[in-house]
Amino acid sequence: MKLAVLGGGQLGRMLGLAGIPLGVEFRFLDPSGTAGAAAVGELVLGALSDRTAVAAVARGCDAITYEWEGVPATALADVVATHEVAPGPRPLAISQDRVAEKSLCSDLGLGTAAWRTADTLGELVSAVRELGVPVIAKTRRGGYDGKGQATITVPDLAEAAWNALGAAGDLIVEETVAFRRELSVLACRGRDGASVVWPVPANRHAGGILRESRVPAADAATQAAAEAIARRMLDALDYVGVICIELFDTGEVLLVNEFAPRVHNSGHWTIEGATTSQFENHVRAVLGLPLGAAELRDGPVAMLNCVGRLPDLATILSIPGAHFHDYGKASRTGRKVGHVTVVAPDEETLEVRLAAARAAIDDDG
Amino acid sequence: MKLAVLGGGQLGRMLGLAGIPLGVEFRFLDPSGTAGAAAVGELVLGALSDRTAVAAVARGCDAITYEWEGVPATALADVVATHEVAPGPRPLAISQDRVAEKSLCSDLGLGTAAWRTADTLGELVSAVRELGVPVIAKTRRGGYDGKGQATITVPDLAEAAWNALGAAGDLIVEETVAFRRELSVLACRGRDGASVVWPVPANRHAGGILRESRVPAADAATQAAAEAIARRMLDALDYVGVICIELFDTGEVLLVNEFAPRVHNSGHWTIEGATTSQFENHVRAVLGLPLGAAELRDGPVAMLNCVGRLPDLATILSIPGAHFHDYGKASRTGRKVGHVTVVAPDEETLEVRLAAARAAIDDDG
Repeated sequence: MKLAVLGGGQLGRMLGLAGIPLGVEFRFLDPSGTAGAAAVGELVLGALSDRTAVAAVARGCDAITYEWEGVPATALADVVATHEVAPGPRPLAISQDRVAEKSLCSDLGLGTAAWRTADTLGELVSAVRELGVPVIAKTRRGGYDGKGQATITVPDLAEAAWNALGAAGDLIVEETVAFRRELSVLACRGRDGASVVWPVPANRHAGGILRESRVPAADAATQAAAEAIARRMLDALDYVGVICIELFDTGEVLLVNEFAPRVHNSGHWTIEGATTSQFENHVRAVLGLPLGAAELRDGPVAMLNCVGRLPDLATILSIPGAHFHDYGKASRTGRKVGHVTVVAPDEETLEVRLAAARAAIDDDG
Repeated sequence: MKLAVLGGGQLGRMLGLAGIPLGVEFRFLDPSGTAGAAAVGELVLGALSDRTAVAAVARGCDAITYEWEGVPATALADVVATHEVAPGPRPLAISQDRVAEKSLCSDLGLGTAAWRTADTLGELVSAVRELGVPVIAKTRRGGYDGKGQATITVPDLAEAAWNALGAAGDLIVEETVAFRRELSVLACRGRDGASVVWPVPANRHAGGILRESRVPAADAATQAAAEAIARRMLDALDYVGVICIELFDTGEVLLVNEFAPRVHNSGHWTIEGATTSQFENHVRAVLGLPLGAAELRDGPVAMLNCVGRLPDLATILSIPGAHFHDYGKASRTGRKVGHVTVVAPDEETLEVRLAAARAAIDDDG
């Protein structure tokens, strides 16, 4: 079996590490000759938007997947006729358009923050008035890790926000949700329609970048609500592979923030913490294999991102229960270059270990 | 960090899968262009006995290890001057010579089966008389997986055994131990002299080939005795890396059968079953990094070898708690081509899952 992956970053690298034991060979398409996934498969150099390159990397492969949701759906136009592409172009296209994403949620009866579109400054001003400050204006397409967003705290700032963001395209304006915490639900659906849902992690962001995920985080009712959201979306999209849906937990209800049609940073803890990791189940799903159990293994688990630069390896490895993941990337401000997963028999022990790990991880902020 | 590995089979492949997350790059020396470790590193083609090839693969690497104990110690003669080689040439040479191995055990006060050397037919006849039938005659060097061995059940068969084995070199003759079961102890020692010992697995062989390993298998006293054996041997050899010592459990005492100076088939269960796998700890040790905990994670675990041919992947993956490991090798009678590890919350559940896995694994015997 051979799997083509569009994108050769850390997600591709971890897909490869999970898939090789299943006997799967990997071929990655990436514009960079130093892509970290080259350690676990063949690297084909090319743009992810290049239909010819996508066709070349797909040749001889049993299926195609992607590890970056920025792949233009048009780049897949040729290969969908000849190959299994999972997740398909439709969830990909929806995830790239915040309006389509929110509309899908409405159609499925899934709660979101109230929102308006704003294609002109006048519409932005109206939206701010209707929703009430503070609101968040976002580009309809193209933003990630907090980029392409502006918080409007007083109505007079609408014009500045428009000048900062409006040039990049149409905007969506969302009410600010007073959430208690950020959760995400990771789920995987197979070609046969069967799905599994992992225990929901609680996520902490800073500077628009995920810093920590913790599991377990949800009581039974919250877990059930998150699972219902995930399964409704997976089934509606006839989805194949792993999805990550980011959620706001208001304490009363779970609201959908956005989803990523791929394996996700907030699911990295599954490598050591779950019976089957998000990476292995994604590979299984895309290749039409049965999915593995998504339950938590022993004890609680936490994932800490290493942003900007890596911590000292020996220091991390001397922490009991700590597992290191180096993405093979050069240091750069704001870049995710690795993560550390810490497992422990109980929450108290986890806290001690986490304190040591946090002290060793010298993020660039 | 870059690690040179002599041998590019499944052990090299699993070393790579464990080491890549630590940021380690791999370069393998193997005579076969289809070596399975090529999926996780650079493959250099060459004989493991070729000093020039060994020097070439070592160039630019931080350390050298091997995944096959048949590497001639002479092949390492040049690189030991320029590189960290772990485990060192001495344990390698001892493991290749059953007489040196048994003598080491005697020196360290570790029990073994009674044994004699036999360099001539006359000495073989004397040894058989002294030890009493049945005895096992083995070539002093070069045997593995039950090859190069003959059981002598009546004294008159000594000449036939000599004719079958004596031409291959000097023999060692061992009394037959009435053991209750076969155990092995896997341990790892770092460059700083610290060591960890995994829970002892019970192993079942058939046709001279390991078929199953189960953990936990030992009560506290047996575990302590096995750990004492492992630590005595590791410290005496100033050993760096993973060692596997095969043990006969007579019900009264643990006797050393033989040791392998490398990661070992009876430790494959550690990938899913232990906090840190034998592969990751071997990489850590060889590169001078701190070792990870070797304790059992949740529940019991069993490893089943796939010999000759692989089972149907979808059937295995549909068994809860089953993890598949395809070595990327062509099918061939008697060849280890993969393994399945099964985890479960309790022994009863494990038995049910194991029965399903055994039924799916269609060994060639």
